[in-house]
Amino acid sequence: MSHLPKVHLKPSASEGIARRHPWIYRGAVAHSQGEMGDLVEVLLDRRPVAFGLLGPSDIAVRILGFGPAEDLGAVLSRRLASAASWRIPMARSRGVQAFRLVHGESDGLPAAVVDLYGSTAVLQLSHLGWIRNLDLFVRCLLEAVPSIRSVVLKNTGKHLPKEGLQEDVRVLIGSLDQDLTVPLGRVPQRVPVLKGQKTGLYLDTRDWAEDLSRLPLEGARVLDAFSYQGHLSLNLLALGAREAVLVEQSPLALSNALWSARGLGLQERVTLLEGNAFDLLKGLDQRGEKFNLVIMDPPPFAPSRRNLEGAMRGYRELMVRAINLVLSGGFVLFGSCSHAVSHDALLELALKGALDRSAQVRVIHRPAQPWDHPVSPQVPQGEYLKGILMEVDK
Amino acid sequence: MSHLPKVHLKPSASEGIARRHPWIYRGAVAHSQGEMGDLVEVLLDRRPVAFGLLGPSDIAVRILGFGPAEDLGAVLSRRLASAASWRIPMARSRGVQAFRLVHGESDGLPAAVVDLYGSTAVLQLSHLGWIRNLDLFVRCLLEAVPSIRSVVLKNTGKHLPKEGLQEDVRVLIGSLDQDLTVPLGRVPQRVPVLKGQKTGLYLDTRDWAEDLSRLPLEGARVLDAFSYQGHLSLNLLALGAREAVLVEQSPLALSNALWSARGLGLQERVTLLEGNAFDLLKGLDQRGEKFNLVIMDPPPFAPSRRNLEGAMRGYRELMVRAINLVLSGGFVLFGSCSHAVSHDALLELALKGALDRSAQVRVIHRPAQPWDHPVSPQVPQGEYLKGILMEVDK
Repeated sequence: MSHLPKVHLKPSASEGIARRHPWIYRGAVAHSQGEMGDLVEVLLDRRPVAFGLLGPSDIAVRILGFGPAEDLGAVLSRRLASAASWRIPMARSRGVQAFRLVHGESDGLPAAVVDLYGSTAVLQLSHLGWIRNLDLFVRCLLEAVPSIRSVVLKNTGKHLPKEGLQEDVRVLIGSLDQDLTVPLGRVPQRVPVLKGQKTGLYLDTRDWAEDLSRLPLEGARVLDAFSYQGHLSLNLLALGAREAVLVEQSPLALSNALWSARGLGLQERVTLLEGNAFDLLKGLDQRGEKFNLVIMDPPPFAPSRRNLEGAMRGYRELMVRAINLVLSGGFVLFGSCSHAVSHDALLELALKGALDRSAQVRVIHRPAQPWDHPVSPQVPQGEYLKGILMEVDK
Repeated sequence: MSHLPKVHLKPSASEGIARRHPWIYRGAVAHSQGEMGDLVEVLLDRRPVAFGLLGPSDIAVRILGFGPAEDLGAVLSRRLASAASWRIPMARSRGVQAFRLVHGESDGLPAAVVDLYGSTAVLQLSHLGWIRNLDLFVRCLLEAVPSIRSVVLKNTGKHLPKEGLQEDVRVLIGSLDQDLTVPLGRVPQRVPVLKGQKTGLYLDTRDWAEDLSRLPLEGARVLDAFSYQGHLSLNLLALGAREAVLVEQSPLALSNALWSARGLGLQERVTLLEGNAFDLLKGLDQRGEKFNLVIMDPPPFAPSRRNLEGAMRGYRELMVRAINLVLSGGFVLFGSCSHAVSHDALLELALKGALDRSAQVRVIHRPAQPWDHPVSPQVPQGEYLKGILMEVDK
């Protein structure tokens, strides 16, 4: 038996342990020792079954392993090395410079995200256990990926307080290049680490550019709604599309999109529309504007199952709008990053939209989150990003 | 009102009509006129709501349209032109010479499949309506795609008798080149139109070669189970993998795989194992063989929901076998072409396999059927092909 604080589980927890689920909910704990953030040993029927990090939220323990308890540094080193072992060659062979190195539970490092932008690592560590062991985390990271020169912590978001954390944004190693840029596909992108969404860019739709590049869009007019920095539509312009209309609420994102367009010498083929996307799209629709491709990738209206119904209304409006705005014979790419919207629900959404507009749609691809955002089968809700690419006849 | 024979629906059919579902089941028909294979007008509450083809199976009418009845040739011409309008540029831009031009219900031409291999079209027409109008079908096809030189009908399969059809394989236009070949990715493939599966090749996994080409498999050992003509593993050999072991029951498929390997000058890096895959895989496993990538793409054990349970047993054995045969840090691509196996069920299958072998798996991609096999949202069971690509740690 280890000398770690002990967490004793109720018998009802046995199924989760048998499935190697990485979360112990508070309700499954009979009694526990230790302080928040401690590495603890988890016991079921007095036998040690797992070890992990103790926290104050509904998820009492984030499990790190199901064998005998190990040194935190040893676990971190092994998991980081494993995450890097296949990602770095995959990124290199595809010329990808921006990717997710660590994707939380899927990589055996719960509540930990590490995104790489060239030699800059941006961390989101949503657990006291990691923050209390921040130096160790960074040391193991630099050992696993020696090419990293700068490390930035970017802990922001509403989920932090329930984990006993507060906003915490700082440079941990090296310095943060204010002019940090990376290419996404053919498009140079600024990386607004501090002021942008997530760790700077939405890396999860990075490879959708490749999916879209297969469509026959020479000379096409492209609408890119909820565009953020517009990498999807700008990539199509670089491939021969004629015009891109970007709709986006964030002035910073649009200004960075313009910077990218200038870098490609394509700024004259870009229209930027800043404001509420629902209103702007309605306006485009009322003016009778039509596009060969409509990209509609809204934010997660349904962060949980509780608000799914309201979210689906928003999605339905946007799906109908997209089908209205596309030319007959054109394409719609519709994305949902709400894990509560299932694979089947997205297809039903497409059907409802088509019926509403008396259109026929055919689904030609189901873009999803990329290889560097893998899914653990134990945590199916980790499969949060789902797209549907359709050809539309009217 | 048209002069077509009439099919009157029961009131219960209204929901299907409202959803524009392309099938009228026999149980939804109140009374009907016409002979099997006739173009008929469909009425609900005495109002014409659709038109389609009458047949003898459980699906009494295959709907061609929901507006007023039209001439069959006009519908055929429009649908074929629409199917070709986006597929031919997509195929051309990607250098694809073998693809599905018409995918049944998804293209508004129910029970009709047209696969193109260069200038040869292979038809599977599983409805009396098409067979009775075969000349018209072929004429419209040649008009829509003038580059077609040969047309072959390949009606085979157990589903034909219930549609009032029998096996019917013949050259309709031109001649069938006995040495017909096409490239799939980097791999030259013979197309055994008459003796092979489906229309000659499994076109639905064609683009999985591209998915696999992104993995770091330089120098790798690849197991290709249920390989058919082995295009997936041979493509990886062409990209730098070291060795491919093909497991396949069909001697013809293996001999064609060897032909492809010789064409690439890679025959010395290929091992062909002919026979029952379950037995051969067990043998490999007992000998302790290990691979960097295991491709496991079995036939549809579950053609319907009725035999899903038995099918899942087969899938479970193969999933566990795949996880056993892969090296730690390697990859498994598992495919299911049973539409009854859902997106979620495939993830659960991966979980069960991982738990059985005390492995950790992470899903890095969900390969599916390609763009030329589109899905109609009205017929979600048309989304039959689902793959799961995993990185495996043991």
